[in-house]
Amino acid sequence: MNELPMSLRKEAREAPESGIVEVVNFAREREDLIPLWVGEGDLKTPDFIREAAYLGLDAGETFYTYQRGIPELRRALADYHSRQYGRGFTQEEFYVTGSGMQAMQIAIQCVAGVGDEVILHDPAWPNLAAVVGIMGARAVPVPMRFSADGWSLDIDRMFDAVTPRTRAIYLNSPCNPTGWVAGRETLKAVLDRARQLGLWIIADEVYSRFVYGGEARAPSFYDVAEKGDRILYVNTFSKNWAMTGWRIGWLGAPAELGQIIENLIQYSTSGVAGFMQRAAIAALNDGDNFVEEQVTRAKAGSTLIREVLDNSERVEYAPPQGAFYLFFKVMGFDDSRELAKTIVSQTGVGLAPGAAFGPAGEGYLRLCFARSSRDLAQAAERLQGWLSR
Amino acid sequence: MNELPMSLRKEAREAPESGIVEVVNFAREREDLIPLWVGEGDLKTPDFIREAAYLGLDAGETFYTYQRGIPELRRALADYHSRQYGRGFTQEEFYVTGSGMQAMQIAIQCVAGVGDEVILHDPAWPNLAAVVGIMGARAVPVPMRFSADGWSLDIDRMFDAVTPRTRAIYLNSPCNPTGWVAGRETLKAVLDRARQLGLWIIADEVYSRFVYGGEARAPSFYDVAEKGDRILYVNTFSKNWAMTGWRIGWLGAPAELGQIIENLIQYSTSGVAGFMQRAAIAALNDGDNFVEEQVTRAKAGSTLIREVLDNSERVEYAPPQGAFYLFFKVMGFDDSRELAKTIVSQTGVGLAPGAAFGPAGEGYLRLCFARSSRDLAQAAERLQGWLSR
Repeated sequence: MNELPMSLRKEAREAPESGIVEVVNFAREREDLIPLWVGEGDLKTPDFIREAAYLGLDAGETFYTYQRGIPELRRALADYHSRQYGRGFTQEEFYVTGSGMQAMQIAIQCVAGVGDEVILHDPAWPNLAAVVGIMGARAVPVPMRFSADGWSLDIDRMFDAVTPRTRAIYLNSPCNPTGWVAGRETLKAVLDRARQLGLWIIADEVYSRFVYGGEARAPSFYDVAEKGDRILYVNTFSKNWAMTGWRIGWLGAPAELGQIIENLIQYSTSGVAGFMQRAAIAALNDGDNFVEEQVTRAKAGSTLIREVLDNSERVEYAPPQGAFYLFFKVMGFDDSRELAKTIVSQTGVGLAPGAAFGPAGEGYLRLCFARSSRDLAQAAERLQGWLSR
Repeated sequence: MNELPMSLRKEAREAPESGIVEVVNFAREREDLIPLWVGEGDLKTPDFIREAAYLGLDAGETFYTYQRGIPELRRALADYHSRQYGRGFTQEEFYVTGSGMQAMQIAIQCVAGVGDEVILHDPAWPNLAAVVGIMGARAVPVPMRFSADGWSLDIDRMFDAVTPRTRAIYLNSPCNPTGWVAGRETLKAVLDRARQLGLWIIADEVYSRFVYGGEARAPSFYDVAEKGDRILYVNTFSKNWAMTGWRIGWLGAPAELGQIIENLIQYSTSGVAGFMQRAAIAALNDGDNFVEEQVTRAKAGSTLIREVLDNSERVEYAPPQGAFYLFFKVMGFDDSRELAKTIVSQTGVGLAPGAAFGPAGEGYLRLCFARSSRDLAQAAERLQGWLSR
């Protein structure tokens, strides 16, 4: 590094490059690419959502607005949660953010600074650990256990990692990348232990609708939480409503934190465009069918990919219970970055390297199956050809 | 504060509520309100900019995109700067952010953490000091000097505040709230001293087009900087192109910092919506006339307000050379928060309290004159009535 970068703050300088983007950049321009490496589907945002944004723009909703989100959207969030979790919520429990990622950044700014520690399961979406690092805190990964029946989290092991510096536990269920879904009993146990220790929980339930056992949604901390619990929920419009590019999400948090969270929004992005919030309202109020279609499509995608990969004895994975990724190992390869680059070079199928998700992800590849069956069938065929060489 | 807020990180808990928003919330619902308290004009975003967003939405630009901004927008930024500053720029020097505020947050994350100090002039836009505090660093205000001829910055005094902990100098010219514009010689002197000390400069030139002496723009650090200088430029589409609510801005920074800034964007908001970036391109490429109209309108607004307030011997101010605020004192009142509340209660004219901009702003009020002459004439009349009681 030359002099200019070296004169920056250490934590900024050392924030890691996304291991996913690294591979994307390696082969972004390849011909015949089937990009299954990032966490987004191939459907553009549906018309009824885009039209709500048009209307907001036409109406001139281009001025500064409420830092916490417009009241109509916060009410729509409360209604949506009431429907999902079968009990009452108020708008005071929700804060609109400029992406789920920003919800996560604000959650971390709330709880962890220099010298603090945040415990997370490994593998996990890498951006949480990165934002912890940028704040000068330390992310402490606790390896999950793989078996062909499924990934599992050893809660004792997770809490063995607690030190006097621990401020929070991050739990992502349904899990990106592993497809693991925490049962209600697991969530209850984590909450009980966190309560005893006075720790915050950062609950990432972004994929809660994407579950494949016939249930309407995954178990949630909302099912077991009580008033006064220290839980920050980070969420996004990206996955449910095909709005990845919009950068709009929300934070669920106790109403008592309202002014503090408003301040953290004020001093980072100062809110979300009014006309974008209109689109988010349409998504929440009129988007249930679209979400169901997407889940059905992802389930079919998972089946299609697995049926083909099951033909190879070199492939090993646990069937995903949720989210929309297949996280699989190819026998004989240890370096997932190299493997992802080799596969995209030789087949044009873009996969994310497991190492990007933490040490326990090394050796695995992540494939996003929230795509058309045509793309997935072609990707599966190419992968099968490559595997049988 | 009850137990939940108290369990949060100190720097988050202690981030100040915006002193402007405090007064806005006090009287947001008042009948007959003329809101001159926040920093935005009354024109909605022009059609040609909104239409570019429609087209992007229609084209399905709703997917993840480049963290640093789409290449077309970064090129448009380079072209815009080349036109403004009469020399070549490359797209590698620009990074698209989710507001000027976010550009500022990323700039601070680059340079200042726990125990560090950032020097700024006082008064200044309060959000800079707040984001410095959230990072655990300390904002060190250096009072500017008021005289009826204009505000002035004593550079020796500014650099007397440097300690071994100082990492950066923040300079906002044209200045919100005072209307002060730094001359080229001042900028050169600040840069020379900062170079000697190895300090970063955070250059906030958001109002560079809003100057009232007949020149096309204010002097800029770009006029005096050389390759290798430690300068981060924070900027926004908000003011020039009536896009306050959009939350889109940019950071100008040395190309060598590219990967670091990309990472900080990745781990905060992960970029800006593609269709919003289309609107930003339209603004840069086709928005010169609109900017000129806005500047002409603001100049007329400044004249109108001042002509009326000049009738009162109780009002004191320095004529603003730039930005779009009148920052004035009413003799006999020391507490600007109370005064702003009194005035909005009794007249319906919403003004920002000077105390929100730092200790040296106490006693002043900020009035935004980027409004229609009808609104401003009515506001001036009401203020005159109130002053002559």
